[in-house]
Amino acid sequence: MKKRNMCKVFVALSLLLLVNPNYGVSNANADKVSSMPKTHYLAANADNIRWGNIGVGKPVLTVNSGDIVTVEAVTHHSGDDYERMIQGDEGVEDIYHWNETEQNVADRGPGVHIMTGPIAVEGAEPGDVLEVKILDMKLRPNGNEQYAGKTYGANVASRWGYLYGEMIEEPIKREVITIYEMDSAGGTDYAKALYSYKWTPQTDPNGKIHPTMDYPGLIVDPDTIERNNNVLKDVQIPVRLHFGTMSVAPKEADIVNSVPPSYYGGNIDDWRVTEGATMYYPVSVPGALLSIGDPHAGQGDSELNGTAIETSLTGDIQIILHKKASLNNKLSGLNFPLLENENEWVIHGFSYANYLEELGENAQQDIYNKSSIDKAMKDAALKTKAFLMKGMNLTEDEAYSFMSVSTDFGITQVVDANWGIHAVIQKKVFGESERKLVQLRTSFEQFGSVVEWNPATKRVMIRFNGNSLTATIGEKTADFNGERIKLIAPIEMIDNQAQVSEYFVSFYKAKLSKTE
Amino acid sequence: MKKRNMCKVFVALSLLLLVNPNYGVSNANADKVSSMPKTHYLAANADNIRWGNIGVGKPVLTVNSGDIVTVEAVTHHSGDDYERMIQGDEGVEDIYHWNETEQNVADRGPGVHIMTGPIAVEGAEPGDVLEVKILDMKLRPNGNEQYAGKTYGANVASRWGYLYGEMIEEPIKREVITIYEMDSAGGTDYAKALYSYKWTPQTDPNGKIHPTMDYPGLIVDPDTIERNNNVLKDVQIPVRLHFGTMSVAPKEADIVNSVPPSYYGGNIDDWRVTEGATMYYPVSVPGALLSIGDPHAGQGDSELNGTAIETSLTGDIQIILHKKASLNNKLSGLNFPLLENENEWVIHGFSYANYLEELGENAQQDIYNKSSIDKAMKDAALKTKAFLMKGMNLTEDEAYSFMSVSTDFGITQVVDANWGIHAVIQKKVFGESERKLVQLRTSFEQFGSVVEWNPATKRVMIRFNGNSLTATIGEKTADFNGERIKLIAPIEMIDNQAQVSEYFVSFYKAKLSKTE
Repeated sequence: MKKRNMCKVFVALSLLLLVNPNYGVSNANADKVSSMPKTHYLAANADNIRWGNIGVGKPVLTVNSGDIVTVEAVTHHSGDDYERMIQGDEGVEDIYHWNETEQNVADRGPGVHIMTGPIAVEGAEPGDVLEVKILDMKLRPNGNEQYAGKTYGANVASRWGYLYGEMIEEPIKREVITIYEMDSAGGTDYAKALYSYKWTPQTDPNGKIHPTMDYPGLIVDPDTIERNNNVLKDVQIPVRLHFGTMSVAPKEADIVNSVPPSYYGGNIDDWRVTEGATMYYPVSVPGALLSIGDPHAGQGDSELNGTAIETSLTGDIQIILHKKASLNNKLSGLNFPLLENENEWVIHGFSYANYLEELGENAQQDIYNKSSIDKAMKDAALKTKAFLMKGMNLTEDEAYSFMSVSTDFGITQVVDANWGIHAVIQKKVFGESERKLVQLRTSFEQFGSVVEWNPATKRVMIRFNGNSLTATIGEKTADFNGERIKLIAPIEMIDNQAQVSEYFVSFYKAKLSKTE
Repeated sequence: MKKRNMCKVFVALSLLLLVNPNYGVSNANADKVSSMPKTHYLAANADNIRWGNIGVGKPVLTVNSGDIVTVEAVTHHSGDDYERMIQGDEGVEDIYHWNETEQNVADRGPGVHIMTGPIAVEGAEPGDVLEVKILDMKLRPNGNEQYAGKTYGANVASRWGYLYGEMIEEPIKREVITIYEMDSAGGTDYAKALYSYKWTPQTDPNGKIHPTMDYPGLIVDPDTIERNNNVLKDVQIPVRLHFGTMSVAPKEADIVNSVPPSYYGGNIDDWRVTEGATMYYPVSVPGALLSIGDPHAGQGDSELNGTAIETSLTGDIQIILHKKASLNNKLSGLNFPLLENENEWVIHGFSYANYLEELGENAQQDIYNKSSIDKAMKDAALKTKAFLMKGMNLTEDEAYSFMSVSTDFGITQVVDANWGIHAVIQKKVFGESERKLVQLRTSFEQFGSVVEWNPATKRVMIRFNGNSLTATIGEKTADFNGERIKLIAPIEMIDNQAQVSEYFVSFYKAKLSKTE
C-alpha cells in the first residue's frame, strides 16, 4: 500500500471514530465511577506482616468485597544474600532488622514465611467463599544501587528437601543455596544462576549458632561462606512468578504454622497461582483474614529440593466475597483451595485434606512425619470426581471416565509437610458451558468502559477509570497503560465480532478498575 | 495487490526456480538412494502378535538399524463393542476369532495387551540402546461399512482402576465401559462419548462365565447389557494418540506380563509416546525384540480409572540401534525408558525400577500389591538427578537446584501394577546445547534432499525419496505428500535463513525416507 493511500484510510478511520457515538467518551463511565471498588496499598514492613504463621489476629487492612489491594510480599530467604535482597530496601530492612538489642519481628514461627496481612473482608462469615483474582504480579527491584535493575532470588537445597540425605557426593547431608538473578523490569523471561554456596554455621545477633537453616530470617555472613561462581552456566530458568502461600485463616487454631497447606489454602506452592489466575477459598472465620507471602520467581511441579526461586514480589489482587446463600454449584460447600484461570480448573489435594482436624492436638508437629504422595493422590482424585459431579453436573460414571481420559494429575510439592497433588481440568473440553465467549464491545461497555476499534490495524482499545488496555486481535501480548503485558488469552474474531471469554471480561474489568 | 501484479511475481519466482541450480533435482538424491533404509509393513493378525506378554521368542520381523516399519497395533478392548471395533476388519477378526472349536490366539496372558511383534534388530546386543522414532500415528478406521469414516475406542472403569470400590453410588464395585467415537481421518481433534454400559457377566465360547472383565478379548454380548446413550453430552475429549505399551524384551524371563512397565519400557502409558517423539530403551537380549501395542486415543496423566480411550492405531516407526561403544553421555548406561521430543526430555520412574529383579521369583504376581506413587517419585527424582549430571554435565548441586526450580513431575499412571512418575525437562532451558538450531537447507541437502524456497509465500518444499514436506515459515502445520500434518516445530527465520533444530532434521529425514 502506498503511503498516500494509508493516509486516506487513517483519515477515514478518524472520521469514523468521531461520528460513531460508541467511540466517544460515554456518560455511563462517570455514572459507574461512584460504585468503583476502592484500591488499597499494603506495604510490607514489620507492622504489616506475621512471620511464620497465619490465623486469627488483628487485621492490618479491612476491605469491602470488590476492592483491589496492591500487596507487597517479601521472601523469607532475603537473608541468604543481604547485599542483594535486603540492603537499601526500607521495607525489607524493617522486617529483617535484628541486632543485639532489637529484633523488629521477634515472633517468628512455627513456620517460616513472611505473610503480609491479614486482610479482613467486611461481612465475610464462615461458609462463604473468598475469591482472589490476581491482576498483576511484578518482581520487587532490589534496593541496592550497586545492583540497580536486578532482582535476586535464592533457591535452597534444604534439610526439608526431598532428597536431603540421599545425595551421592559428600557431605551427603548438606544445605546448598543458589542465588539467581533476574531483570526486575521483566525484560527477560528467565532467571540465571549467579553463584552458590554451602550453608555454614551462622551466628545470630543473640550469639546462637545455627548449624543448619533452622530459624527464619537468619542473615548469612558472607565471610563465612565460599562462593562458587561457576554454576549453571548458560542455563536459563523460565520465570514463573507466583505466590507460594496465600491463605485465609483456619478455624481450628489462632496461630497456625505457615508451612503445611490445607483446606484454607496456605503454602500450596502451585506455580499456577500467578497473574491471570483466580483462587477460591472456603471462609472459616469472621472477616476471612487473607494473608499473602512466600513469593516465588520459578518452580517446577514438586518443588523438589525444598524451595523455589524465593524472591520478593508485588501483586495486585481483587478480593470478592461470595456469600454462602449465593454460591453456585462449583463453590457451594467448597472445602479446598480451588484455582481457575482462562483455560483451566485446578483441584488441590493434600495428604490430609484438613490435617489440623484429622491429626488432632499435635497436628502442627505430627504432619511433618505423616505425609505421602499416595494419600495426596487419593484426596485429589476424590475431590476431582466430586467437583466434576457437582460443578459440571456429570454423573459419577461420567466423571470417572472423564478424569481417566483427559485430566492430568501432577505433583505440586513433596516438601511442605502436607504434600500436594493437583488435577488440571481443561475448560475447553466442556465447550461453551465452561469457556463461554461473549461479544467484547457490549460486555465492556456494559459497565461503562469506552471501547474503540480500528478495523485497519485490528486493534481494540478499552478505557475505564483512567486505565487503558490496547490489544490486537489474535495477539498474545497487549498494552496496559503503556506497559506491555501478556494477555490471559488473545481476542478472537468470530462472526465479524471481537469475542472473548466471560472470564476475560471479568478479569480485565477488575484490572481496569484499579485506581492509581 | 492487484491480480496482474501477483501474476508478475509468480512468473518471476518460477524463473528464479528454473535458473537457480539448488532448485533443480540434484543428482545427490539418486546417489544416496542406495543407502536408503528399508520400509517394512507389519500387519496385525493372529500370526504377528503375542497376547498379554512380551519377551524372548520368535521374531515376526527382522530389521536393520535405520529401517522403518509401518506397524499396526490393535486394542485388546475391541470386544467391548464387536460391531464397531472388530466386525469387517480382517486383521482384528483374525486376532479375536474364538468359537466353540477354535481360538486363533489361545495363549493369552498373564497380561492383557495385544502386542504386535516382536521385531528383531540385526546386531542388537545387551548393553546397546534401541532408539525408536515415532514418525506417524493414525487411527485405524473401523471395518464396518455401517460406521464408515469413524474409529471407536473403549474406556473402561475397571476393577484395577484407582477408585474401584471407592465410588459413592451403588453398586460401589462396578465396571463401566464408555464407547468413544472419533473421525478416522483426524478431521476433528476430539473424541465424543457415544454410549456407556455396566459390565454384566459374559459367557465365553467355552461356556465359562466372567462376572468381571477378567480375561482379555472377551466379546460383550450386546443383548446382555443396557446402553446409556445420554453420556458426556457436549464434552469433547482432546485426542492424544499414543502407544500405551512399547517394549524391548527383558532379560529376567522369556514370558513377561505386559501390564507392569519397567526398565525395558512396556506399559508406560505416557501419552507423550506419540508422533514426533523418540524413545530410547536399554537392550537386554540379543535382537532387542521390540513389540508394540495398547494403542490409545486419549488419556490424562494418571490413567485414573484403569484405561485410556483404548483404540487401534497404525504407526510408522524408525528403529535405530546404538551400539554400546558409541553411546553418548545421555544414553551410556541407560537403565530406564527415556523419551525425547522437539522440546523435552522425559524421565520415567516406577515404584520399582526393575521389579522383576527386585521382587524375585513371584515378581509378576507380587508387583500388583506393592506399588506406590511415593516409591515411584523417589525413583523418578533419583533418575532425573543422575540424568542431569551425566547427560547435561551438571554437578550434583546444580542438578538438584535445577530440578526444584524448573522440572515438572507428573503422575504417569496409578493402575499398571508398577506405578509411574515422569519428570519433564525443557530443552530450551539449556539453550543451544540441547536444542541446537541448524540451517534447514544445508542440513537437508546434506543427505540428498532437494530443497525449494519461495520467498514470496515463505514456503519451503523438501523432497526426498519420492516424499515431500511443504511448510511455511512460522506455521505449526505443513503438507506431507498432500496430507496436512502437525509439525513438531515451526520453521524459524533467523538471520534471513530458515532454521530448525537438529532434532527436526533427524525426525523429518526419517519421515521422508519411508518408501511407500
